[in-house]
Order: sequence, then structure tokens, then C-alpha cells
Amino acid sequence: MKISFQKKSPLRRKTRQIKVGNVAVGGDAPVSVQSMTNTSTADAGATVSQIKALEALGCEIIRVAVPDTDSVKALKKIKKAIAIPLIADIHFDWRLALGAVDAGVDGLRLNPGNIGEKGRIKEVVRAAAQRKLPIRIGVNAGSLEKAILAKYGGHPTKEALVESALRHIRILEDMDFREIKISLKASSVPLTIESYRLLAGKVDYPFHIGITEAGTIFSGTIKSAAGLGALLAGGIGDTMRVSLTGDPRDEVKVGWEILKALELRKRGLNIVSCPTCGRIKFDCAGVAVEIEKRLSHIEEPVNVAVMGCVVNGPGEAVEADVGVAGGDGVGLIYVKGVAVRKVKQEDAADAVVEEVMKALKERRK
Amino acid sequence: MKISFQKKSPLRRKTRQIKVGNVAVGGDAPVSVQSMTNTSTADAGATVSQIKALEALGCEIIRVAVPDTDSVKALKKIKKAIAIPLIADIHFDWRLALGAVDAGVDGLRLNPGNIGEKGRIKEVVRAAAQRKLPIRIGVNAGSLEKAILAKYGGHPTKEALVESALRHIRILEDMDFREIKISLKASSVPLTIESYRLLAGKVDYPFHIGITEAGTIFSGTIKSAAGLGALLAGGIGDTMRVSLTGDPRDEVKVGWEILKALELRKRGLNIVSCPTCGRIKFDCAGVAVEIEKRLSHIEEPVNVAVMGCVVNGPGEAVEADVGVAGGDGVGLIYVKGVAVRKVKQEDAADAVVEEVMKALKERRK
Repeated sequence: MKISFQKKSPLRRKTRQIKVGNVAVGGDAPVSVQSMTNTSTADAGATVSQIKALEALGCEIIRVAVPDTDSVKALKKIKKAIAIPLIADIHFDWRLALGAVDAGVDGLRLNPGNIGEKGRIKEVVRAAAQRKLPIRIGVNAGSLEKAILAKYGGHPTKEALVESALRHIRILEDMDFREIKISLKASSVPLTIESYRLLAGKVDYPFHIGITEAGTIFSGTIKSAAGLGALLAGGIGDTMRVSLTGDPRDEVKVGWEILKALELRKRGLNIVSCPTCGRIKFDCAGVAVEIEKRLSHIEEPVNVAVMGCVVNGPGEAVEADVGVAGGDGVGLIYVKGVAVRKVKQEDAADAVVEEVMKALKERRK
Repeated sequence: MKISFQKKSPLRRKTRQIKVGNVAVGGDAPVSVQSMTNTSTADAGATVSQIKALEALGCEIIRVAVPDTDSVKALKKIKKAIAIPLIADIHFDWRLALGAVDAGVDGLRLNPGNIGEKGRIKEVVRAAAQRKLPIRIGVNAGSLEKAILAKYGGHPTKEALVESALRHIRILEDMDFREIKISLKASSVPLTIESYRLLAGKVDYPFHIGITEAGTIFSGTIKSAAGLGALLAGGIGDTMRVSLTGDPRDEVKVGWEILKALELRKRGLNIVSCPTCGRIKFDCAGVAVEIEKRLSHIEEPVNVAVMGCVVNGPGEAVEADVGVAGGDGVGLIYVKGVAVRKVKQEDAADAVVEEVMKALKERRK
């Protein structure tokens, strides 16, 4: 995996830094991209191969559900076979949490108020502290404590979400445990944004951000980008998971694309291309999609412009690493702002890919 | 087209209201969804049929490029055949602008500083004023004035974009013309966000927002949702166009999905569905995609939850108009928070669609 950089933002919320395995979260660490497997965790083989596919796409932390002892048993095998930190997602059962810690996971996702009496909580927290494992408190609008829900009129509000988070935080702090990150997820984007903003003023723990139950790839991608975009542009968010009803590989791709869009991190191709309009005399869409496909394996950041008109074309093409400004069936190829040659439209994708590969080779020297 | 509502937001930037045909932009008007045709405007037949397809998807204002006199000639025919306001997009040529006004368009997109000497600008502005047509000043990072670019070191900065906008605004204000909306588009999402934020403190004209040259459907959707999400969640934006290199129908769909995600407007299906995880014993993705497909024609707002586990499932299902909480191959169907029946997984999509249609019928009474 390539190291990516993050622009220092003066706006970024100041948070404590914690470590999930070898990945720093919070402080000035880059916002990391997480996902969650959807294989049965008990099936170590299937889970490992899914995680490896996610690693290749830039997944930096992986979470697996641990609903039973068969899953606990698989954790050791999974941990050994993968390169990125492994988080066990536990609900209700403290013994599963202890088992996961023993199996060598790098972090827990567990709401301490939900695992029973104080003695049990203490035992889990002590085990996590001994191994220096962080705990993520994950508050979810769909599973708020009944008492808190009742207090806020039976519906999840930002105040209810924040109160639930603070309750779990207090339990951990009372045990002198501070390796905490927090998520406050709702399927409502504004509720999610407002809840994180409210809690941001109250604690300095790093935030895991996401829109939960965001829906299908189409609506889930847009809800996640709109919500996480609003949070990140306001300096909130230290690690993120895009939740989609579908293939977790899409979660990683969308996660990276959001970070790239906000110029918080760089990875692979950043493509700038014309909207099509009545002025266009060049097949921008065809050329852009072809380039996107052929350069999808690139991990090093590279900016490519595919422009189809003379109004904004040359300006954008000049700003990119490699660009093509098209018009009337021909494309002018730009490299680092300099026009290098003219090609026919059908050769434009080839020419851009060739120049990108050349530029990357040059850069690696 | 159904009327949609917009939640009053205390955060929304206060702007003057202008009218584009019968669509109000700014003030307390709902954020409207625009697109731009990619047919040749001179081909009135093709352009009209594209616009009709966009209208059906909820496009509320349509813009066409007017690069030549053949396009001007087609405008009258186009205007007559469509239901939504028509905006002529003009670059450089004042005679095309006058021709478009004569042809009965509802607005111009035109940067007055780019159409030549003062006498020509005056003639165009007078023509627009007589017909009460608004003018959008569209500043684009890729086509900034050379003098302004040079002043800011040769690269488009937020200050450069804002200075260009203010220059065009001053030209119109000096002619007592104030039916203005403004866009400041860049392919860089942070540059776009920061430019709008900077200009928001200086003028009260409504903003047309968008990320320009945002790229292919995949990256363009994410850049647009992240950038427009950040702006809209901060109260900025009165009308929007999502720019994609591809089919303008996708621009309208993505535009609506962004507004729905931020709960600024409602239209059709809002689906909440589980991310898949190792706990899942119900085919959420299959059921959700099936429901999305079968309810895509619905314009009235309806919330549907498709949940696959017992942790957050029942909570979310209860909040939706219709929901299904799945588990072990069966689904419990909820209507307005009440569990009404249990169905097999393969019948879950049918059952949800049936309950939605029933609920809509009930609501229409």
C-alpha cells in the first residue's frame, strides 16, 4: 500500500491520537479508510480472501462481526493472514470480547454499556488495556438505549445520540480507559452531521465517521459523500467507513474517492472531465471512461484532464499532469502544462495512458 | 411534476430571490435541480426529447448551449415544446445573446465582461431587463480572465474566482441590473467550496452551485455530492447542477439524491438499508435493489427501510413508512411502525412494494 499524504488543515478538529495496530487515528494522522467484511467470520478462508481484496483497493483497517464462538475461533487465523489491523465487532456478549482480545485483534468495537454488569465490563476493559487495544464506541440511531430514547420523545435526536455516547464514554473513563474513538451513526444525513458537530464540542476523542444504513450503491454513495463531505469539509472525521448495501469493495472505492474529492488524500487517478454539452465535438465520456478503466490499477496519485471544448479545455488541461483538450475529432495532448502533440480522437485514450505511464516512470527515478 | 417542500433552515444564507421563468431561485425557494442538454441545440427535435426525459426525472430548469445562429433559430421551437424554464448559455457573442432573448428564453448564462465593448453589453442587458430575464454569471476556474490569473500567480485561487465574479457583477450593477445569480465553479472541490464561502460574505445574490468537470459518473457523482453536500449543509446554494461526463439524466437523478440525502427536499423513494456484515442472514442488497427498481417511478416521497439484522433492524424499520426487518430467511413487514405480517425472503420485495402502493393510495385520499 502506498503512503498517502494529507494536507494540513487549520480547520481540522483537534483530537487525541490513538493507534489501531500500526494505523494512527486522530491528531494529525491522515483520515483512514475502513470497511467491514460480509462473509461469515467463522469462515476464515472466505473472510481472509475478502480482506485481501479490500487491502489491494486501499482498505486500511478492517472490521469483522463476531456474533459467536465459531467467529472467535477464526480470528487468530484471519489475523495471521492479513496485513491491516483487525477490529472485532461485538454486541452484548462480554465473553466474545474477551475471546477476541485473546485471539490478537487490534481493536474492539463495543458499547460498554451493553455488555452487562460492571464486573464483566471491567474484565473486558482491563483485557483491552493490557494489550493496548482501542475501543470504538459505536452509537447507532437504530439501537439507542430505551431509557434515552424515551427521554427524548421516543425518537433518536442528536441530543439522544450524544447522551448515549457520553454514557458509554463515562463508563470507560471511570476505568481510566481513554484509547477511545467514537461514532454516532444515523441513516439520516443531517442527524448524523448535527450529532457529530454536537459531540465535537464536548470531547477530544477521534471520530469514526459514516452514514449508517445508507442504502443501495446509488443512494448510499450519495448519502455518504454528501454527509461525510460536509463533516470532513468542516474538519470533523479521523477515520471513515462508507456503509453500502452491497460489495465492501465499493465501500473502499467510494471512501477513497470522497477523500480524494476533498483533497485530503491522494491515491491513483484523479480525473477531471467535461460535462457534455451542446458545444462538444469530442467524445469526452468515451475517452474518460476508457482512461479510468485502464488506469484503475495505479496507486500513485496522478491528475488527468479530459476536456472537450475550447472554453474551459485548455485551462484545465494545463493544470493536470496529463491532459487532452479535444475539438472536432482531434485531441491536443498536454504534459505538465505543455502541448506535446495532436492525435485523432480514437487514439486519445492511448496517448493519455502512454503519457501517464511515462510520467510515473520519470517520477519514480 | 410534484411540488416538494424544503425544511426551513435557520442556517441558510439569506439571498435575494430572482425568477427564472416560473421557478423562484434564492430567498426561501427550494433549492432547484438543473441540467444541461448535450444534444446539438440546432437539432430542436433531439433537444426537446432530451429535455422531456429530464423533466420526467424532476429537472426544473434546463440550459442549452447557444454557440451559433442555427442554435438561436431552434430556441423558439424548443421553448414552445417544453414545460420548464429554458436558459441560453452564451459565450463571447452578443448577437447570439440578443437572438436568444428574442426567441423567448427564460434566462441567460453569460459573463458580461466577455462579450466585448460596453455598447454591446448595454444592448444585451437592456434586452434582458425589458423581458425580466435573469442573468447567471458563471465564473469557471478553467477560463478566468488572463489579467486576473496573472495577478494571482497564474493559478486559479478563490480570490481570483471571486474577483472575476465581482468584476462581472459590477458591470451589471452599473447598468442597474440586479436579476443576477452567480456560480463559481472549479474542478477542485475544496477550491469550489472556499470560493463560494468567500463570495457569500460579499454579495446577497443567489448562488447556482456545482462542481465543474467533475469527471465520470463514478468520480463525478462523489465529487458533486461531497462538494455540494458541504456547501448545502453550510446553508449555501439556491439552485444546483451536477456536472457529469455522461448522460444528463444521471445529473438530474444525482442532483435530487443529494437534496434528498440532506433532507432539503423530498421526492420518491428514500431507502434505508443495512450495510452487509457477517451477522446478516437476509439478502438485504437483493431486496433493496429490487424495491429501488420497482419504485423508481414514484414521485411522492416515501421512506422504506430494508434491514437485515436484529441489532439496528427493528429500530430503523419502525421509523420508516414501510419497512422489512429480515433474519434467517424471513422478513417482518412494518407499516408506520407496526409489524403487520411475516413473509419469506423471496416475497419481501413484493410485500414492501404492495404496502407502499397501499400507503400512497391511502395518503392521496
